[in-house]
Amino acid sequence: MQKPSIPKGTRDFGPAQVARRRFILDTIRRTFERFGYAPLETPTLENLSVLTGKYGDEGDQLLFKVLNSGDFAKDVTSEDLSEGSRRILPKIAEKGLRYDLTVPFARYVAMNRGTLTFPFRRYQMQPVWRADRPQRGRYREFMQCDADVVGTSSLLCETEIVLMISEVLPALGLDDFTIKINHRGVLSGLFQALGEGRETDLFVALDKLDKIGPDGVSKELGERGFSEASIAKVFELLAVSGSFEEKLTQLQAGLSASVAVLASADGPADEAAPSDGARGLAQLAEVLDLLRASGFKQESRLELDPTLARGLSYYTGCIFEVKINNVQMGSVSGGGRYDNLTGAFGLPNVSGVGFSFGVDRLYDCLEALDLFRQPAETPTRCLLTHFDAASGRAALPVLARLRAAGIPSELYPDPVKLGRQLQYANAKGIPLVLLLGPEELAAGVVKVKIMASGEEKTLPLAGIEQALSAE
Amino acid sequence: MQKPSIPKGTRDFGPAQVARRRFILDTIRRTFERFGYAPLETPTLENLSVLTGKYGDEGDQLLFKVLNSGDFAKDVTSEDLSEGSRRILPKIAEKGLRYDLTVPFARYVAMNRGTLTFPFRRYQMQPVWRADRPQRGRYREFMQCDADVVGTSSLLCETEIVLMISEVLPALGLDDFTIKINHRGVLSGLFQALGEGRETDLFVALDKLDKIGPDGVSKELGERGFSEASIAKVFELLAVSGSFEEKLTQLQAGLSASVAVLASADGPADEAAPSDGARGLAQLAEVLDLLRASGFKQESRLELDPTLARGLSYYTGCIFEVKINNVQMGSVSGGGRYDNLTGAFGLPNVSGVGFSFGVDRLYDCLEALDLFRQPAETPTRCLLTHFDAASGRAALPVLARLRAAGIPSELYPDPVKLGRQLQYANAKGIPLVLLLGPEELAAGVVKVKIMASGEEKTLPLAGIEQALSAE
Repeated sequence: MQKPSIPKGTRDFGPAQVARRRFILDTIRRTFERFGYAPLETPTLENLSVLTGKYGDEGDQLLFKVLNSGDFAKDVTSEDLSEGSRRILPKIAEKGLRYDLTVPFARYVAMNRGTLTFPFRRYQMQPVWRADRPQRGRYREFMQCDADVVGTSSLLCETEIVLMISEVLPALGLDDFTIKINHRGVLSGLFQALGEGRETDLFVALDKLDKIGPDGVSKELGERGFSEASIAKVFELLAVSGSFEEKLTQLQAGLSASVAVLASADGPADEAAPSDGARGLAQLAEVLDLLRASGFKQESRLELDPTLARGLSYYTGCIFEVKINNVQMGSVSGGGRYDNLTGAFGLPNVSGVGFSFGVDRLYDCLEALDLFRQPAETPTRCLLTHFDAASGRAALPVLARLRAAGIPSELYPDPVKLGRQLQYANAKGIPLVLLLGPEELAAGVVKVKIMASGEEKTLPLAGIEQALSAE
Repeated sequence: MQKPSIPKGTRDFGPAQVARRRFILDTIRRTFERFGYAPLETPTLENLSVLTGKYGDEGDQLLFKVLNSGDFAKDVTSEDLSEGSRRILPKIAEKGLRYDLTVPFARYVAMNRGTLTFPFRRYQMQPVWRADRPQRGRYREFMQCDADVVGTSSLLCETEIVLMISEVLPALGLDDFTIKINHRGVLSGLFQALGEGRETDLFVALDKLDKIGPDGVSKELGERGFSEASIAKVFELLAVSGSFEEKLTQLQAGLSASVAVLASADGPADEAAPSDGARGLAQLAEVLDLLRASGFKQESRLELDPTLARGLSYYTGCIFEVKINNVQMGSVSGGGRYDNLTGAFGLPNVSGVGFSFGVDRLYDCLEALDLFRQPAETPTRCLLTHFDAASGRAALPVLARLRAAGIPSELYPDPVKLGRQLQYANAKGIPLVLLLGPEELAAGVVKVKIMASGEEKTLPLAGIEQALSAE
């Protein structure tokens, strides 16, 4: 007899957990739809030719691959075997599990370019799979909720991302959060100001600032060959403070001074083309402006963070990341603008911007802050008790009426002792128990027990569904 | 440049399809919950030790297996390779994709037996995967919706299955359907009446009656070694007609006559133990009785079909199958009672009953009967047009008000020609377009164009969200 188990990093969701997850998903969905995003669903299985090479080497390792059906090993030779897994893989697996929602979205847009109307706003709420080492808050099967617009470079879209985040989190009960914003151009400007190479090295090191602190970042930049002067300059340029607007001004000053220095060293500055840094700062200023024009009242939650890098290299414009401040937890949302997401699928130069909510992290935040309502193990609101065959039968039309009135109800299926039926209602969190014994039936009434208080009322059987709808 | 594609037998669902599928799923969910079924979700990935051996040899072939991560081939020897795929499989894959919702449910119940309160009513709406040959109406990734109760053998549960089916299908707009019912005991009684062995052979042949007709079944039974007399007897016993009740009476008469003949041949009949056939017929009669007591008004949709076998061998009591009569399509729902579903996971003798809706087939039926409402490509109800930067900016607070009033709305993100914006609204099926140019702004009004009729109204800007909520 086997002892059943589930794969590590996966979870069963019982009734109470499904109800809580649904609350989160419905809240996000409502906002996405209010902003005109339309739902898309893509298959769990994607061709490995679509997935491979899109997430870096590490990502390729973390893809779950699905064995070809039938005699999958028929083309594997003993020479392949001696070369190892990498050589064998393409001969035995051509499909994999969805790793994120962005690549399938890009694949969908490229495949349907002829029939889609652009700008195309889509949201997608589906699980993804990663063969990561499971740990607290990290699962192998988890839910993502993405919203993206492609086919426009309007900064309205960035503005709406801030508005959507600012609507969803308070609707979930999360009020203490910070939306960090940066622009890839600011980072590029910083890199240009240094006059050193290795843009990626700089981003990777900066991305760890939260974890390893300024000293750690300095050390890492030194190890990667940045000069002490450059490292000092990085921290000088990044040492901005105050409101979003004040930081903008400080960064503008810092970067333009550096650009001027570089320009005078290299020759006359090209005044017609604004630097990446200036362009990035101008776009951040416009997003702020559009937010104000939209009546956005939560500016204190917005933080311009020039060190925000976000690992993914496909971002080219504004980038976002959201932290819940009163819980120890990684970012619960993030995203940014990309200019060539569908390029890998033969559709170049489609600009888009998108972001994602991490449902599992939101769930953990709500749990940590005790923000979930009392979980119910069932949707049932009324349990009709079952004394004997006659009372069970008499309950059937009542049951039908309650359900027709939209009140989730059940009749305990077997005529067991009343105590056991009440215990059942209690364990499941069913709020109302209806007692319909021979006496009640004779009098045309029903006894209603309110489980939370223990209170009992006797109500006329006629119209009981209306009486309980109002309960 | 690769041409992107999706694996055969899988599908992308665009906005209109998601909306239609959601209509079906929401309708089913509402009924399940009204009947007190609580949601459960299990992982997509299950251990192959849980899945293998539960679906027969053919099912094991159709399981999608997931490669172990890392250096999956490290334990495969060249001797394994020469033995072929079957020998290699257990060394390189220990997980598979969910094949149905029943086995994961049984696994969940067995794993959580200590904390669950029985009877446990759960529903589950999740995709499943089968490496079947794709064809019309058969996909490799498709959605199942199951509801099961375990921990009671009350026939109320069977009754409720009929009630739920009779609620869901009309709610979807499907009014011409037949719910076929049989009982495994009736089939066993038939088999006992024949006095031949090979119960399974008989079930398998009968299961094909719809496809190959009586002559085909006779021929197959002959080939499987049934005597001509037995075959004639099968058809004699099955040749019942009339209402559910009339068929019950005919079957009772036919089976008890046969049992009497067998008993007299074998020795005195054991009068204390009713035969399987009699028990089955009595249960079917009780289900009919409970349906009537529940006020069930659709008896003409109920068909007692003594030839209904349903392939799955785990059924032990009533079995169900539902056909939509005015569409050429396999069954859209089916299920039955089982007495030992969790036995394979170390929890024997738990009786339960369940059934399933096939969402993809329901979708195809609704499409074939043209019962879907006009598909919308977006949830958006109002498109605000964008003439220039100033009008775009002026639209922002209006946009915020519309959304706050719960009206899904968007502002066209770029100031392109009006014609193109109208074309966009048209292609997406957005019903209302709001024009807010310099003149309208000056006058404090907004022009609303109703896309379906082309009609234009001028409404005051103040309170526009209330005016359009009522639209």
